[in-house]
Amino acid sequence: MAGDKNFVLKGNICYSEDAKNLKLVEAGWLVCREGLCAGVFETLPEEYASYPVTDCGDQIITPGLVDLHVHAPQYAFRGLGMDLELLDWLNTNTFPEESKYRDLEYAKRAYGIFADSMRSSATTRACIFATIHNQATELLMDLMEETGLKTMIGKVNMDRNSPEYLCEESAEQSAADTVKWLEDTADQYENVRPILTPRFIPSCTDELMRKLKEVQKKYDLPVQSHLSENQGEIAWVQELCPESRFYGDAYDQFGLFGGDVKTIMAHCVSSTEEEIELMRERGVYVAHCPESNTNLSSGVAPVRTYLDKGVNVGLGSDVAGGSKESIFYAMAHAVQVSKLRWRLQDTSLKPLTVEEAFYLGTMGGGSFFGKVGSFMEGYEFDALILDDSDIRHPQPLSLKERLERFIYLSDERHIKGKIVAGNRIF
Amino acid sequence: MAGDKNFVLKGNICYSEDAKNLKLVEAGWLVCREGLCAGVFETLPEEYASYPVTDCGDQIITPGLVDLHVHAPQYAFRGLGMDLELLDWLNTNTFPEESKYRDLEYAKRAYGIFADSMRSSATTRACIFATIHNQATELLMDLMEETGLKTMIGKVNMDRNSPEYLCEESAEQSAADTVKWLEDTADQYENVRPILTPRFIPSCTDELMRKLKEVQKKYDLPVQSHLSENQGEIAWVQELCPESRFYGDAYDQFGLFGGDVKTIMAHCVSSTEEEIELMRERGVYVAHCPESNTNLSSGVAPVRTYLDKGVNVGLGSDVAGGSKESIFYAMAHAVQVSKLRWRLQDTSLKPLTVEEAFYLGTMGGGSFFGKVGSFMEGYEFDALILDDSDIRHPQPLSLKERLERFIYLSDERHIKGKIVAGNRIF
Repeated sequence: MAGDKNFVLKGNICYSEDAKNLKLVEAGWLVCREGLCAGVFETLPEEYASYPVTDCGDQIITPGLVDLHVHAPQYAFRGLGMDLELLDWLNTNTFPEESKYRDLEYAKRAYGIFADSMRSSATTRACIFATIHNQATELLMDLMEETGLKTMIGKVNMDRNSPEYLCEESAEQSAADTVKWLEDTADQYENVRPILTPRFIPSCTDELMRKLKEVQKKYDLPVQSHLSENQGEIAWVQELCPESRFYGDAYDQFGLFGGDVKTIMAHCVSSTEEEIELMRERGVYVAHCPESNTNLSSGVAPVRTYLDKGVNVGLGSDVAGGSKESIFYAMAHAVQVSKLRWRLQDTSLKPLTVEEAFYLGTMGGGSFFGKVGSFMEGYEFDALILDDSDIRHPQPLSLKERLERFIYLSDERHIKGKIVAGNRIF
Repeated sequence: MAGDKNFVLKGNICYSEDAKNLKLVEAGWLVCREGLCAGVFETLPEEYASYPVTDCGDQIITPGLVDLHVHAPQYAFRGLGMDLELLDWLNTNTFPEESKYRDLEYAKRAYGIFADSMRSSATTRACIFATIHNQATELLMDLMEETGLKTMIGKVNMDRNSPEYLCEESAEQSAADTVKWLEDTADQYENVRPILTPRFIPSCTDELMRKLKEVQKKYDLPVQSHLSENQGEIAWVQELCPESRFYGDAYDQFGLFGGDVKTIMAHCVSSTEEEIELMRERGVYVAHCPESNTNLSSGVAPVRTYLDKGVNVGLGSDVAGGSKESIFYAMAHAVQVSKLRWRLQDTSLKPLTVEEAFYLGTMGGGSFFGKVGSFMEGYEFDALILDDSDIRHPQPLSLKERLERFIYLSDERHIKGKIVAGNRIF
């Protein structure tokens, strides 16, 4: 909802300057000018004296959270059936559920629930997988547009290795449907943008990947897919693409792996050194999905390595591999699994800190959308107003402590305000 | 609050028969007779026709949850400071916080918050550590008595290796204070019982342990302590007790390790085979604390081994090693970390199933209290009435699916009723 995008929020402000540095400003003034951050001040500068001020009292103000990887059609079975590894899980739980979205009534019901939940959550920006179905995907886009969140949404491509009830007829059909989807939805939305979504290498013939590259170029689309999540999957890709040097190279051979193609690859749990180096070089984004990687027994991605090497990383809820859409929960889980990875797998990679987890869920993922995920000057003004007053404590707490607890202990009840690009959602 | 303990709950009933078998009865009748379960029926037997019936509609009814290990004084800093391993964490965060409980005003405030939270939670029975301070411990017992939960609460013993501000003067003083605490609180409570609580071997001189054995025998007390949580701790115990064959043997040498002494040992992450065998033989209870073991980078306990060998196991929140008092959350976390242990450490130990996690958090821990944690005939009637109606879903769900989702997705808002030993808490 458009409104006046010049205003001030006063409260206890927390935001990342980079992966290691968290800036905390108590009783600070956070200025939004024309939908962008004009800065965080200890005293309100004269030039903003005419701006309306929302005094958030003792509440905490943070940037909105970014979910780089979530499957909207799987929201229906979140918290269920996580007793299989990836490939079996897809065949047993996921593909049957996704096939239901050919029924628009079901899609409306299911996507309505998803959109409501995303609206209420702390997420301000998200990259979302839909299904192969054009109409359901367009319905999802309509619903997400209304939430006011800024999202990228993709009709999924799958022309092989899935059941007939969830498989596109041919590479040609899949590409044609993709173009139709793009044409049907062109210029319809302010908040939603399309993102090219080949499900993953096993789902997409070489021919389809080549056609999708043409589509990507023609429509100048970003791309999202999956990479190196699970050992069985990696071995399968090697069989399917025997000339690829590693899994990521299979995408790269089709020109769909970073460079001038903005790309998110979810998981990257077991990426080889070569693959990591290519991701770094090409600016590919890793969507780190700690809960999903745990629930499906895939392992723990070496996020420390990605941060150290300057590979772009953000967080993904990966519902329904993950059970919750909450990116605060993903932050806590990211710290937790990094500790188990350190203890059980590799003590050379130190666990993540709270500062780093916070960065991942805000600026780390936000940068995929541009200058998003921080309150540094010039950043798009996405913000959350958070009330931790019912998380009772007998002792005084610093702002840093309040933020850390918030990550571990809060839920959507504690989100009292949400702003995206200067627009108030609630 | 005593009341008529003959009544019926009608609803969707879930309970464990053992670690592997979850019984589900839709639209079933669960009869409480004299505070004990008389059974679960598909049709209400004639003999109970006069009993008042609470029709819970579509709600789910489960046994109450059991928290075998929680530190009441640490509730104040839950969700904070989990960036150190055990021994450093104790010295940096825990001991300073626990020392504040010499101040009764602080204790009242802090324990008031803890008691309220426990009351609202899904926990019906808990084994709780207090601090070394008699008065604060008695205050905690008063507060927990009022909640109606059945708890065992222990004044903690610590006469070495802690800062002077949180260390008892001598073994003699510690034992004398323990006796005074027991005498002061004898016969005061219906719901609270004392449990002997030597903090752990590093905190307790041999002399203190010997004196505590005398106290244990005289007052016929159960015992709770910590065991094999962390490598540094285990090594330290070996130094302190050079004649012990393993950590558990150090407790056993003082006669405080199962047999006719009901004993809970928290963690057991890195127990040796010998230690596990002794626990099994002696009926020692493992309080498995998955979140704490993760947050403090201790590792993952081999719960599968414990279940396979018939070692008693229940769950512990271990606040503030763990961030939440929720045992539903502990169930989910137990499944999750068992998957990472399988993937990263030992693929011979299959991950826990949802049925097993549910068992651990009800009957597994409940058996420490007697016939507790199930709806089989003769079990004490602890129950929860759970409403998952706001966890929206577009598709029909089976009762089993509803229970699984509930474990992952619920919070205390969803607990609509709570009964302990036939008494309605709310």
